[in-house]
Amino acid sequence: MIKVCIIGSGNVAQHLVVALIHAQNSGADIALVQVYSRQKESIANLLDASKITSDFNTLAEADLYIIAVSDDAVAEVSSKIPFQNKLVAHTSGTVAITALDNKNRKAVFYPLQTFSKNKAVDFNAIPICLESENPTDYEVLEKVAKSISNKVVAINSSQRKALHVSAVFVNNFVNHLYQIGNEICAENQISFEILKPLIKETSEKIQTLSPKEAQTGPARRLDLETINTHLDFISDENHKKIYEILTQSIITDGKKL
Amino acid sequence: MIKVCIIGSGNVAQHLVVALIHAQNSGADIALVQVYSRQKESIANLLDASKITSDFNTLAEADLYIIAVSDDAVAEVSSKIPFQNKLVAHTSGTVAITALDNKNRKAVFYPLQTFSKNKAVDFNAIPICLESENPTDYEVLEKVAKSISNKVVAINSSQRKALHVSAVFVNNFVNHLYQIGNEICAENQISFEILKPLIKETSEKIQTLSPKEAQTGPARRLDLETINTHLDFISDENHKKIYEILTQSIITDGKKL
Repeated sequence: MIKVCIIGSGNVAQHLVVALIHAQNSGADIALVQVYSRQKESIANLLDASKITSDFNTLAEADLYIIAVSDDAVAEVSSKIPFQNKLVAHTSGTVAITALDNKNRKAVFYPLQTFSKNKAVDFNAIPICLESENPTDYEVLEKVAKSISNKVVAINSSQRKALHVSAVFVNNFVNHLYQIGNEICAENQISFEILKPLIKETSEKIQTLSPKEAQTGPARRLDLETINTHLDFISDENHKKIYEILTQSIITDGKKL
Repeated sequence: MIKVCIIGSGNVAQHLVVALIHAQNSGADIALVQVYSRQKESIANLLDASKITSDFNTLAEADLYIIAVSDDAVAEVSSKIPFQNKLVAHTSGTVAITALDNKNRKAVFYPLQTFSKNKAVDFNAIPICLESENPTDYEVLEKVAKSISNKVVAINSSQRKALHVSAVFVNNFVNHLYQIGNEICAENQISFEILKPLIKETSEKIQTLSPKEAQTGPARRLDLETINTHLDFISDENHKKIYEILTQSIITDGKKL
């Protein structure tokens, strides 16, 4: 039985708590023994009050402490754990494993997903990227990760940084392009709903084709007439700049083919 | 019974042929009477040889001609239709309705989707954007469109241009960002598979949240430390430029909130 303690009460912490309780109830050999939350009420709807603490001095003994707090708080929070030689993992895509306090065994438990408070996620489909300083600890991380996800991968710190940068491109930036599409629609009295099937299909296409194979559009086929018509049409200077740089990038890539 | 003739044999034409035959077989009051294809064999697997012509002089009589050819061929192809005062629609997102030859009644039948030859699409979920010069023709277009799609909308030429520009952002450019994510993964010996659940979730999120609400990441929370770490990490100058411009755009938007 692996005893797990979660430190934090934000999006990632909450989704982890739900997933771990579910795994435990489904018979996994793990136990969520406690959650630390500065404000107990922020997590009170998810588990029994007796399992929540807001005081590091009453932190329970556990085999694994998962720190799910904002990046800049990871180091400080890890120093507040009142134990030594315990396995402590953070959940950040960017923070180095070395940022964790030296008194405990360091690890990373990074779920690669975008979490929103008001949207349930299927943790089973979320890749969990693991890293530990020693192999025995990796086995513990792996058991816990596999109890909640089907996609558990070993990722070192440098790969994790690459993965996080990639995630910014395919999630944060992609979402921003959705927003620009939304704005252009709104300015022209078109419902954003019309674009949703296309957005869905675009993301589904690369589940079977490579992005290179899936690339279509005026830039890909070097259709300069359409590109210029579009640039004339776009009034927002910022949108125009983004259109230009991405078009140029697709054209350059096309020439490499 | 509305008789339809498709002119063209590319991706859009082929998907339209399949959808119209399916609608016809399902009892819709339409008939696909003929398909024009320069090379008969390119469409021979989809319908009976007797319904394919490669000669405009043998084009069948129909109530609606749908021209599904490349943008720059629309005008010329429309001039080759050997009839007068027929309803003729093109399927382009960018070509003006006025580009069609004057001898026939002009219309647009624009399915807003990304079509790939090797990937089936569910036409039912594809918005079809219609425009006609006169209201009676709109009814014909609408009947045909509704026989293959649940999402039929009236869109004028200026809106259609806006829609096409938006589609370039949410499809072509989004796919290009997928490709950049793929490249960064490959350079760091990470399987692109790990990013796929995130890509899926990103597109699903905006089915229920607005893109503005769904925006997360270092730029959104003004996390300059992470942004700088990422910029240091990215070696490709083009990727760096794209990272910078999209980050700046998200930050600017955040300030407007």
